[in-house]
Amino acid sequence: MSAPQSGFKAEYACSEGCDFRASLLDVVYRCPRCEGLLEVRHDVAALRSVPAAEWKRRFESRFGSSRLPDGSGVWGKREWAFPQLPVEDIVSLGEGRVPLKPLPRMASELGLSALELKECGVSPTGSFKDWGMTVLVSAVKHMRAKGVPLRAVACASTGDTSAALSAYCAAAGIPAVVFLPRDKVSLAQLVQPIANGARVLSLDTDFDGCMRLVQAVTADTGLYLANSMNSLRIEGQKMVAVELCQDLGWEPPDWVVIPGGNLGNASALGKGFELMLELGLITRRPRIAVAQAQRANPLARAFRGGFQELQPMQAESTLASAIQIGNPVSFRRAVRILKAFDGVVEEATESELANAAARADREGTFTCPQTGVALAALEKLVAQGVIAKGSRVAVVSTAHGLKFADFKVGYHRGTLADVTSRHANPPVQLPANLDAVRAALSDLG
Amino acid sequence: MSAPQSGFKAEYACSEGCDFRASLLDVVYRCPRCEGLLEVRHDVAALRSVPAAEWKRRFESRFGSSRLPDGSGVWGKREWAFPQLPVEDIVSLGEGRVPLKPLPRMASELGLSALELKECGVSPTGSFKDWGMTVLVSAVKHMRAKGVPLRAVACASTGDTSAALSAYCAAAGIPAVVFLPRDKVSLAQLVQPIANGARVLSLDTDFDGCMRLVQAVTADTGLYLANSMNSLRIEGQKMVAVELCQDLGWEPPDWVVIPGGNLGNASALGKGFELMLELGLITRRPRIAVAQAQRANPLARAFRGGFQELQPMQAESTLASAIQIGNPVSFRRAVRILKAFDGVVEEATESELANAAARADREGTFTCPQTGVALAALEKLVAQGVIAKGSRVAVVSTAHGLKFADFKVGYHRGTLADVTSRHANPPVQLPANLDAVRAALSDLG
Repeated sequence: MSAPQSGFKAEYACSEGCDFRASLLDVVYRCPRCEGLLEVRHDVAALRSVPAAEWKRRFESRFGSSRLPDGSGVWGKREWAFPQLPVEDIVSLGEGRVPLKPLPRMASELGLSALELKECGVSPTGSFKDWGMTVLVSAVKHMRAKGVPLRAVACASTGDTSAALSAYCAAAGIPAVVFLPRDKVSLAQLVQPIANGARVLSLDTDFDGCMRLVQAVTADTGLYLANSMNSLRIEGQKMVAVELCQDLGWEPPDWVVIPGGNLGNASALGKGFELMLELGLITRRPRIAVAQAQRANPLARAFRGGFQELQPMQAESTLASAIQIGNPVSFRRAVRILKAFDGVVEEATESELANAAARADREGTFTCPQTGVALAALEKLVAQGVIAKGSRVAVVSTAHGLKFADFKVGYHRGTLADVTSRHANPPVQLPANLDAVRAALSDLG
Repeated sequence: MSAPQSGFKAEYACSEGCDFRASLLDVVYRCPRCEGLLEVRHDVAALRSVPAAEWKRRFESRFGSSRLPDGSGVWGKREWAFPQLPVEDIVSLGEGRVPLKPLPRMASELGLSALELKECGVSPTGSFKDWGMTVLVSAVKHMRAKGVPLRAVACASTGDTSAALSAYCAAAGIPAVVFLPRDKVSLAQLVQPIANGARVLSLDTDFDGCMRLVQAVTADTGLYLANSMNSLRIEGQKMVAVELCQDLGWEPPDWVVIPGGNLGNASALGKGFELMLELGLITRRPRIAVAQAQRANPLARAFRGGFQELQPMQAESTLASAIQIGNPVSFRRAVRILKAFDGVVEEATESELANAAARADREGTFTCPQTGVALAALEKLVAQGVIAKGSRVAVVSTAHGLKFADFKVGYHRGTLADVTSRHANPPVQLPANLDAVRAALSDLG
């Protein structure tokens, strides 16, 4: 009934339009001709040979599987990710297939007809990075099986990327190496890679120095580079868009709001919608809003200037540390996506992002500060009339708030710098007697 | 095709065998005649009117739904949870439907033919409590809709229970109240209830004083009690057993290992298996091993004495803080389940639990200390020959390690009291030059 997976193929192409092509098994990260980023290009004509209704049926049928890889939110749609990959080389931790959490009270207050959070942090390593890393580590497993001499996978990251890389490599039995600046990162930030057995190198340099070293080492010693310029990860991350549409009965929302740092995630979102449009699974383009912290807002600045060239900036310290990036790797592909989806860019101050996160938490979620940036941008775009009243909006929630417990504690204690905690909910101190307790609860219900 | 949900019903019955019965909409927690715990008793004869194959088909079909409540691991099986509950009163955050993570290296080292972790911590609030709390809060929503004068839901808990209660109440718009001893609990432990808008009462007393106050208040002021004696939660938690069998193609493992504190979870597991056996979805009983911390081991002591009556003990401080309980509420029902499933009880020291957790993490998971207790017990039971070589074993992983970051950091720093960190993986300090990095990686791959 199903077409064989091997009937489809994908390859690397230069995303800047030159005619460079390479196999997905080649160890190549940028176009060797023009230095542009690569992208994974699918054989859309072949994919079109399967009717849209059959893709939907196939995806929905696998979605109910208890077994991996079918039950993975990424590999249940594997023909669209890395079609040539043999199923036995898939490294899955059960990523994807995450809740779509409605925020009905916030929707009503903003005058939206729907507002839902795609909870990508309800995931094995606690962030959306799992969606992409499963593709990259599976590709490495396959390359090693094919005899490509890769000894390990490496990245320079202080957060979610190193956690995801380490977990998937641990599951696959592939060594992982994480490069970090000494004294800049706490052990708590690193505890996932450490627990998952990665080789964590603490180096006498800053983050840029780590990036230079990881690139030098991966260029010549059989280490594969897992940083965000790697295009394989986009192929998993784009499934967030596909799963979102599936959740909504294949009817995209009017707007999708997503936090943006290096901008790979925003690019992936657009790539997912593009493929669904090309194959007829959806017929309408949502609009996309990328949300940045005001302290790390190079895309927002470029947007206000009509998308001139990127002006790299020194990002300032922000609570939304995962998107504290001044020179985003995927700037050009994000701009292309924003133009294609009639997109906008909005930014949020520290106080705005912290309050928006706390407001959403009151409806039973536990948002990370990056998701707070997206929610604050949404509030502002509605206030400006850019997002019209009555719109149906989805927000991509990128990590579990459990990764940012200090942010939550500081917010409710009222101790975060530059934040006025409008939704603080401190404990009520009481003597241990029944009358005092009754009195403290007399206003409830 | 499907029988209407209203064709089934369940009611409270005294679990100690007296003939007390009550509606699930009654506000009652213990048998008013004999003070025994209540249990939810289903009309098994009516459930038997649906063939086992049809139950499997129905459950599998809903499992693939993107929409709630069908896509919930609990409410996709709602006829077995709270059959009379109208679908519009369901409060779901997308609980359940969690990964079954294989640990093939540990299985091979122990000589098991399969070892898998049911990852109940990959969940909206980060613990298995979500499975039960969705049933309790949905019941409260329904009671309020029916005019039962419940102003709020209350619990005395320092951890996962208060987090789950607060999140589900926040989603439902029902006030939640959490009772806590002042100065005994850090804000970090409380940050989920606080963020989710619960009324957190910090009282000048100890934990037992909080329990007395919450019981007094819930007895007379229209607050519903969500503590672990509440039997509705068992109806959701038992779905861990059902989903586990579904994952395995309706073939139960030989052994299930589960950490035990108040013992509601172990009881629920058995209740799930019993119902599947009664309705013919499985035909074989797995054996059950309950794992306790050596410092809070009243069940293990009772087991060694041939299951005499419980001798309540003063639990000592353990890393497995969520099961640090000396007088478990569900002792008697857990003993019944252990007898019915040819069960055993094993215990783990601090060092054993911490090392077992770290060992599993090396395969790409991120275990909580309670799951470490279960894994350590497994190691010991295999060494003793109680769990035979070649067995297929499932371990219930109860919370996400992200809730226990300090435990992980302490382990890998080697600073946990009474723990020898055999799998510590500290960062490697290096100068920032390529030769040093190459040398540090020369042994990889």
